[in-house]
Amino acid sequence: MKTISKIIASIIVITTLINCATNFTGKAYNFGLIPSDSTYNTLVGNVYFEAGARSNWHTHAGGQILIITDGEGYHQIEGQPKQIMKKGDVIKCPPNTKHWHGASVNSNLSQLYIVPNTDKRIVTWLEPVTDEQYKAGN
Amino acid sequence: MKTISKIIASIIVITTLINCATNFTGKAYNFGLIPSDSTYNTLVGNVYFEAGARSNWHTHAGGQILIITDGEGYHQIEGQPKQIMKKGDVIKCPPNTKHWHGASVNSNLSQLYIVPNTDKRIVTWLEPVTDEQYKAGN
Repeated sequence: MKTISKIIASIIVITTLINCATNFTGKAYNFGLIPSDSTYNTLVGNVYFEAGARSNWHTHAGGQILIITDGEGYHQIEGQPKQIMKKGDVIKCPPNTKHWHGASVNSNLSQLYIVPNTDKRIVTWLEPVTDEQYKAGN
Repeated sequence: MKTISKIIASIIVITTLINCATNFTGKAYNFGLIPSDSTYNTLVGNVYFEAGARSNWHTHAGGQILIITDGEGYHQIEGQPKQIMKKGDVIKCPPNTKHWHGASVNSNLSQLYIVPNTDKRIVTWLEPVTDEQYKAGN
């Protein structure tokens, strides 16, 4: 049974990695905790980013809350300086605001994400974060 | 500055404990992470329960999500058996459903709570969980 569990876990990781590939630069692993539904209106999960990995630019129609559970990373709202995020930090991104988030250059990042108000659109994916944008201000 | 920070932290813990006293049995410490507002419609925080501590019965008009981050505890929806909750578990309680949660008899419990849909009433506190209710099925 343990072998079967490991195979299933590997398939989930591979599938998640493939799913992430188009909207992320580097390796990022999404682990969903709460799927969105019309009762709770909330999507919850965890993303583990390897050092250097980050999301594309994107927006959430209902906003997003990030709780950093391990490591160090960056969060940037378009037009604002890049923020450093560390374990224990809580970050909010307002509705319909273009942002990206990911690990720092030299550290992995684990971040719990909460997407509220999912009766609006959950996420709109945009263009990748370039190396120049990612490294700006380091 | 560190001394001042420690005094402020102590006051917060004492205040939180006092605030909790009327709606909890035993010692429970609430640490808010995200206050409710009309943009995110979401309340997020962490409660640390000492062994034996538990909330009163209560309801959430918009439901509640619990993510267990450490220890072991119980969750019970009225009319259903008591559930054991362990680190890594995710628990959902539907809107307007009477429930309670807390640590188990022999273990502390840390639980992240997410209250969505806070444009409805966040919480309605009810009567304490009796020792008989708390220990039933142990």
